[in-house]
Amino acid sequence: MHHEPIARSPIDPAFLARLQDRFGEQLATSDAILGQHGASESHFTPVLPDAVVYARSTQDVVDLVNLCVAAGVPIVAFGAGTSIEGNTVPVRGGVSVNLSEMNRIVAVNAEDFDCVVEAGVRREQLNEHLRDTGLFFPIDPGANATIGGMASTRASGTNAVRYGTMREAVLSLKVVTPEGKVITTARRARKSAAGYDLTRLYIGSEGTLGIVTEVTLRLHPIPEVISSAVCGFETLEGAVQTVVQSIQLGVPLARVEILDDMQIRAVNRWSKMDLAEVTTLFFEFHGSAAGVAEQIEMVGSVAQENGGGEFQWATLAEDRSKLWKARHEAYYAAVNLRPGAVGWTTDVCVPISRLPECIAETKQDLAGASMPATILGHVGDGNFHVIFSIDPNIPAEMEEVEAINTRLVQRALDMEGTCTGEHGIGLGKQPWLVAELGEAVDVMRTIKRAIDPMDLFNPGKIFAL
Amino acid sequence: MHHEPIARSPIDPAFLARLQDRFGEQLATSDAILGQHGASESHFTPVLPDAVVYARSTQDVVDLVNLCVAAGVPIVAFGAGTSIEGNTVPVRGGVSVNLSEMNRIVAVNAEDFDCVVEAGVRREQLNEHLRDTGLFFPIDPGANATIGGMASTRASGTNAVRYGTMREAVLSLKVVTPEGKVITTARRARKSAAGYDLTRLYIGSEGTLGIVTEVTLRLHPIPEVISSAVCGFETLEGAVQTVVQSIQLGVPLARVEILDDMQIRAVNRWSKMDLAEVTTLFFEFHGSAAGVAEQIEMVGSVAQENGGGEFQWATLAEDRSKLWKARHEAYYAAVNLRPGAVGWTTDVCVPISRLPECIAETKQDLAGASMPATILGHVGDGNFHVIFSIDPNIPAEMEEVEAINTRLVQRALDMEGTCTGEHGIGLGKQPWLVAELGEAVDVMRTIKRAIDPMDLFNPGKIFAL
Repeated sequence: MHHEPIARSPIDPAFLARLQDRFGEQLATSDAILGQHGASESHFTPVLPDAVVYARSTQDVVDLVNLCVAAGVPIVAFGAGTSIEGNTVPVRGGVSVNLSEMNRIVAVNAEDFDCVVEAGVRREQLNEHLRDTGLFFPIDPGANATIGGMASTRASGTNAVRYGTMREAVLSLKVVTPEGKVITTARRARKSAAGYDLTRLYIGSEGTLGIVTEVTLRLHPIPEVISSAVCGFETLEGAVQTVVQSIQLGVPLARVEILDDMQIRAVNRWSKMDLAEVTTLFFEFHGSAAGVAEQIEMVGSVAQENGGGEFQWATLAEDRSKLWKARHEAYYAAVNLRPGAVGWTTDVCVPISRLPECIAETKQDLAGASMPATILGHVGDGNFHVIFSIDPNIPAEMEEVEAINTRLVQRALDMEGTCTGEHGIGLGKQPWLVAELGEAVDVMRTIKRAIDPMDLFNPGKIFAL
Repeated sequence: MHHEPIARSPIDPAFLARLQDRFGEQLATSDAILGQHGASESHFTPVLPDAVVYARSTQDVVDLVNLCVAAGVPIVAFGAGTSIEGNTVPVRGGVSVNLSEMNRIVAVNAEDFDCVVEAGVRREQLNEHLRDTGLFFPIDPGANATIGGMASTRASGTNAVRYGTMREAVLSLKVVTPEGKVITTARRARKSAAGYDLTRLYIGSEGTLGIVTEVTLRLHPIPEVISSAVCGFETLEGAVQTVVQSIQLGVPLARVEILDDMQIRAVNRWSKMDLAEVTTLFFEFHGSAAGVAEQIEMVGSVAQENGGGEFQWATLAEDRSKLWKARHEAYYAAVNLRPGAVGWTTDVCVPISRLPECIAETKQDLAGASMPATILGHVGDGNFHVIFSIDPNIPAEMEEVEAINTRLVQRALDMEGTCTGEHGIGLGKQPWLVAELGEAVDVMRTIKRAIDPMDLFNPGKIFAL
């Protein structure tokens, strides 16, 4: 599964000249910038785009789309570059359109609990901006991704167990279609039954059906009380059972994250923490004072029955920040268990009743791995990751990881799960999409061909046409 | 907007013979049965199908689809026939496929809070079946609709403010495509980022992209405490403001329904109630004992500030049932304000901050109407309906209602709302779909043409191709 660049003809200089005319200083072709847009956070072989255009408006994107389509040149949307299945690697070259300068917060409708942002707004920027409104945007994939990128990969993360994923968070999208038209997929009303759900079709389509330039998001009131805690467990299974049983009791956990012993070791080193190096749950409870107290009581007794230790509370906002910062840096922490290594991560999601079995078998499989490998995840959703710290110069390591990953994905599929809970298909998960969804993938291809008949929008992603 | 049957050639007797061979007693062509499938709950001109097939399995549907496609005959899915925008009226004839005998509950996965049902299962049947598991299926459009029909119209109803709509309730669909293939749109995992969201594409597609035969649904724990109450208000505006302010305070209302004075009068007559004939809110609170007490206290004080009277509590399960039965029969109650009348209902949804204005202007417009007209709705979502009780033999009444409805929809669109919160486009809302979504509708048409190139699946619905 090495993704070698497809041989391609050099880009037409006349096309580049047209880009230069239209975009001037917004066009970049330096090695450094091409390199940045050709790489990924993960282990995929970089492939350089032929050019990068920094869009500053939806009209910029429209003009770029029209130029690319007229010339038959691929176009790949790029936000913060934090996706990890190679989702933005321009495998067929062409133009990467960088949307990070489209970072205006267009409107905050506090009384309706929604806001409108340009695609390049980052989630931390948005929450900073919202602070005084008493509202927040809950979707939190860890990385400080752009909202457009999060929509395009159907991202979720630590708060999804309570607040849902980008699927639930987005009210409407502004999209530039392959025909160069600007469409708005829905009105700002909370719900609608007006025609096909194009909003949800574009969410998770990874830039293959057009370019998202603006997003209308649902917001939530900042809870009256927020309590965070960590709790170490005697066994991995006890930790997983605590989550499953709490969910089954209907406790509205806001966040519940598992980090196995190896991941805690990595976090201790990277984030200068001193947690006991055992499987640990990171909890967050949201609600009224009475509601949070009730939740804590229920979860506490479930944890105790499952071999959990004392809850260590982070009651001050700064302690909470430190805790979640450590969680958010878990990927970098895991990769850096080994100097000079690169990360190779995977992402499955299963029905929660199957989660204890799925994690236990995976942990057993990892015991034989020749490189550091950690387990962490959003266990309240049945979603977890393995992070391998590999030396990319040792082909045997890539093969070993690919074999473990294949077993893991197959295990998840056998348990009625999915090959990706939140990272998307990108390049890395393509071998399993058909195994997971069978002929439904033909319907996806039919849609792709109809909307992007020249296969120019992030071509080669999700599936090859 | 009278929907006259399109002139069409009589159906090929050889095709009917093939249906007879394959389906035997499952095929019906009697006037009574054709009439039942050609009518709607609302004011639309009936159009008879040429035949009705009662499917008993997904394979039945596959075989019927293949026969219809080979012969170029339209095929229209039919569940309980409770939709109200003419969604199942077979305007181009062909075969209505009645799925009501596909009413098996295939699996209940209590530990995962989900279940798998055939498309013809009705929501009351499902909740009856679930009772002993401690779980329930919250989506409640009033009518005892089929789950397949509810998915196909993206239904919602009284519980949506807390539990979402069919968009959030469905985990996966089994669909027979126009190619006669059986696809499963997703695995049973709680979330996934694997490819295009076909689940959400089919939800709300009104049978125009294939036939849904099986649905995997999310379930919720039956709350520890359920409290229902009604509260009358001095003014319509006070009632609406109570809802808007409660939502803005973050109160997790499970249900909040508005019924205006005229609707209360209708309910009193039809359901033998003795409510004060003023604008009234029907509330339901779900949660723990402490949580519900908190909610009630907050909403109570907001109501009082807005001219609300005493809360009348329905604490016994049977009183609650009576209350919600009365709410569910509100449509029939409103229509029957006038003997021999038929119903004509509409359905808009706006951002909640605009709701007071939208309802107030609508009420003012209705004051001049020459027939009874009531306002009721799921105000926590910004969604409300007007029900007109009309004499279909008086063309001037149809014209009057159409004019009022046009003003109402335009008002909602001007407020960033939608022309349908939950009834779907069907036949009735087609004039406004393009006004609402502009060129996005072209993308919908592109998808429709690609997936159903012969335009045989519920043709003429949502949009004409």
